[in-house]
Amino acid sequence: MKADGADQYCILHEADLRDYLAGVPGLATTLGGAPSAWEITEVGDGNLNLVFIVKGAQGGIAVKQALPYVRLVGESWPLPLSRAHYEFLALSRQAELAPGLVPALLHHNDTLALTAMELLEPHIIMRKGLVAGVKYPRFVDDISTFMARTLFYTSDLALSAADKKEGIAAFAGNHALCKITEDLIFTDPYRIAEQNRWTAPYLDATAASLREDLDLHVAISRLKLKFMASPEALVHGDLHTGSIMVTETETRVIDPEFAFYGPMGFDVGAVIANLLMAYFASAGHERTPGERRAFEGWVLDTVEKVWSEFLRKFLDLWRAGAAGDGYPASLFAGDNGAARLEAERQAYMQRLFADTVGFAAAKIIRRIFGLAHNIDFELIEDPQRRAISEARAVRLARMMMVETGSFPSITDITGAARKLCDWQPDFAK
Amino acid sequence: MKADGADQYCILHEADLRDYLAGVPGLATTLGGAPSAWEITEVGDGNLNLVFIVKGAQGGIAVKQALPYVRLVGESWPLPLSRAHYEFLALSRQAELAPGLVPALLHHNDTLALTAMELLEPHIIMRKGLVAGVKYPRFVDDISTFMARTLFYTSDLALSAADKKEGIAAFAGNHALCKITEDLIFTDPYRIAEQNRWTAPYLDATAASLREDLDLHVAISRLKLKFMASPEALVHGDLHTGSIMVTETETRVIDPEFAFYGPMGFDVGAVIANLLMAYFASAGHERTPGERRAFEGWVLDTVEKVWSEFLRKFLDLWRAGAAGDGYPASLFAGDNGAARLEAERQAYMQRLFADTVGFAAAKIIRRIFGLAHNIDFELIEDPQRRAISEARAVRLARMMMVETGSFPSITDITGAARKLCDWQPDFAK
Repeated sequence: MKADGADQYCILHEADLRDYLAGVPGLATTLGGAPSAWEITEVGDGNLNLVFIVKGAQGGIAVKQALPYVRLVGESWPLPLSRAHYEFLALSRQAELAPGLVPALLHHNDTLALTAMELLEPHIIMRKGLVAGVKYPRFVDDISTFMARTLFYTSDLALSAADKKEGIAAFAGNHALCKITEDLIFTDPYRIAEQNRWTAPYLDATAASLREDLDLHVAISRLKLKFMASPEALVHGDLHTGSIMVTETETRVIDPEFAFYGPMGFDVGAVIANLLMAYFASAGHERTPGERRAFEGWVLDTVEKVWSEFLRKFLDLWRAGAAGDGYPASLFAGDNGAARLEAERQAYMQRLFADTVGFAAAKIIRRIFGLAHNIDFELIEDPQRRAISEARAVRLARMMMVETGSFPSITDITGAARKLCDWQPDFAK
Repeated sequence: MKADGADQYCILHEADLRDYLAGVPGLATTLGGAPSAWEITEVGDGNLNLVFIVKGAQGGIAVKQALPYVRLVGESWPLPLSRAHYEFLALSRQAELAPGLVPALLHHNDTLALTAMELLEPHIIMRKGLVAGVKYPRFVDDISTFMARTLFYTSDLALSAADKKEGIAAFAGNHALCKITEDLIFTDPYRIAEQNRWTAPYLDATAASLREDLDLHVAISRLKLKFMASPEALVHGDLHTGSIMVTETETRVIDPEFAFYGPMGFDVGAVIANLLMAYFASAGHERTPGERRAFEGWVLDTVEKVWSEFLRKFLDLWRAGAAGDGYPASLFAGDNGAARLEAERQAYMQRLFADTVGFAAAKIIRRIFGLAHNIDFELIEDPQRRAISEARAVRLARMMMVETGSFPSITDITGAARKLCDWQPDFAK
C-alpha cells in the first residue's frame, strides 16, 4: 500500500507506517534522523486498536490506528473506524480545556483512522502502578482539574444552548462505542450473556443473584437510560485507571474514543470505581499481612479527595462566571438571589454525586462479572483470594446502586469500603 | 424571480407562487384548471411565516413559506429559514407515526423554505372554537393518540440508542427555534424584559412578584435545563390550541417548526396548559352568569382525559412491545420481572406527569406575562375581567411549578382549578 496521501483505509504494518510517517514533515522532524533508522514497536495492549511507539534520533512519538473490528475479539466483532475521528475530536477539545493533562496531538488522518501523539515517557498506565502499590501525589489535583474543566466547560452552565446542541450532534455518530457501554456495562452482567465471566466457583452464587435481583435491575435500567439520554457534557466515556498515564509528577488522560455527550457522573464515577477496585484488590497483592496498609489509606484518601476537589473546582468555575444558558444570572440578582443560586448549585452537585455513586457501582460490577476485567483483580493469582476482594467490591457496589440515597457523601462510601475489608464472604469462612 | 427550479431563496409573492405551483405536476393536478384561474389568498395570522390558501377548479392546498425573520416583529429579529426543513422533517415523521392526525404533505422545497399541504377545510384553529365555547368530542382521543404515538415511538423505549442519537442529531440544528422557547418561556417572564407585557395595572403586583419569587426562579431554571438537555423524544415543541385545527369530527396538529428532541412533558404540558387557560378565560366570555358552565365542565373533563388517555395509550404501546434499548426485556423476565417492570413503568409515567405539571405551569405564565399572549384571554374586552381570569390561572400555575409534588394526579390539578373560580384577587375585591 501507499499510505501517504492514502484515499482509503488500510491496516498499517511497520514498513507502511515508516513510509507514511516519513512523508509527514512535522513528524519526521520530531523523530529526526533517517527513517530507516527509526525503531518501531507495536505495543497495543489488546482491546481495540494498534498502537506503535516510534523512536528516532531526536525523539519519539506514539501512533494509534483503529482497526475495523474489536482487536480483543477479532473480525467477528466489527467496530467503525470513525471512532478515531471522535477520539481526535475529543482529544482536541480536552487539550484546549485541560492543557497539559492529555498527550499533545501531533497529526491525525481521518481516512487511515490514525493519530500521532506525544510519546509519554516514562509514564506508565496508572492501573499498573496501583497494582504495584505506588502512590501518585499529583493525581488528585490533576484528575479533578481534568474532570471539572472538561465537564463544566462543555455543559449548559458554560455553553449557549446552540453550541451545546452542536456539540451533541458532532458526537452523535459515535453510537457504536456507546452501544458497547450500554451492553457490557448496563445490561450483560445482569443477565445470562456469553461473554460474561467471573471467578468461579466462588462467585457463582453472587453472579446468579445479580441475575435475579430486580431492585438492581431497576437501578441499572435507570442508569442506562440516563447514560443514553442525558447529554450533560462531553464525557471521556472510559475514564478508568487504564486510561490514565502517570508518573509521580505528571498525569495524562488518554484514549477518549468512547467520548460523547453524556452524564457527567459517568466520568467521575469511573474514576472513583477504579480507585475503589484498587483498594479492594490491594489485600490480594499483599505478601505479608498489612504491608500495603499505607497505600490502602492513600487510595481511600484519594477517593475522598477526587470527589471533594472535583466538587470544589467545578463550583469555583460555576461561581466565577457561568456564561451558559442554564441558570441565567438575571434570575438570581441581589444578595438573596446569590444565596439561592448557591443553594441550587449545591443541590445540583448533590444530584451529580448521586449519579456518580450509581455509575461507580455499575463500573465495579461490570469488571467482576462482565467481559472486560482488570488487572487489579486479575493479577491476584490465588482465585479464592481474588474472589474475596471481588466479593467485597461487589457488595459495596450493590449497596451503592440500590441504596444510593444512603451514601449522601463521599466519606459514606469510603467508610463503607473500610468496613468491608473485615467482611468475609460465605465461601471464605 | 423564477421560482421553479429556484437555486436560491426568495420571498414568494402571489404571481411567483402561481408560476411555481404550476411547475409542480402533482400540485397542479390537485388544484386543477388553468393556473391563471387559481385563487390565492395570504392568510398567515402573523407570528412567523407566510401562509397561502390556493384554490383551483379541482381542489385547494395550503402553502407555507418561512420568512428570514420573525414576521410578528420584523426584520430586526432574524430567524433561520432552516426551520422549514425541520418542520417538514417533523411533519413527515408525525405522519408516519400518527396517520390522519397531521395535514397530508404534498410538496416541500428546502431552498425556498416552502411546504405545500392538504388544505384543512372546514377546520378552524381550536383556540378560536374554545373562545366561542364549542366542545370538540374527538379531541381527547385524537390528541392523546398523537402524543402517545409520536412520543413513545421516538423515545428510548422504542428506538435503538443509535437511531435515537441520529434523530437527536437530525434536529440539533433547530436551535434558533429552541432559543425562542428558552428565552420567552423559561426566562423573560421572571425578569425585566422589554417584550414582556401583562394586563396593567391589575397584574402589576403579580408581575413584580414573579420577578422576586426565588422559589419560582429555581423551579423555572430546573425546567429550562430539562428543556435544553433531556432529549427524551421528538416533541412538537409548540403544541398549544393554536397549533391544532379541528372540526367536531376531526383533529389535525399543525406547525411543528419548533420540533426537536426534548422532554415529553413539554408537549403534554402545553396541551394541558392551554386547556386550563381556556377554562379560566371562559368566565370572561360569559354574557350571562353561568351560561358557559357546561362548556367549562367539558374543558376540565377534557384536561383529565387528555392525561388519562395519553397515559393509557403510552403504557399500552410500551406493554405491547418496547423494542428500544431502554429497559431491556431480558432484565425483567418471568412473573416477578413483569410485575417489577410494570411498577417501573408506572414510576416512569409519574415522573413524566410531574414534568407535565411543571411545563404546563411555565406555558401558562408566559402567556400572561411574556411576549406572546393568546386570544383566550386577549378577547376578554374588559381588562379587569381579563385580569381576574389571568390571575386565577397564574395562581394555579405558580403552585403547580413550585409545589409540583402536591399535585400527584390530574384530578388534583382540575380540583384546584375548579376551586380557584371562586377566588377573587385583591384588585377585584
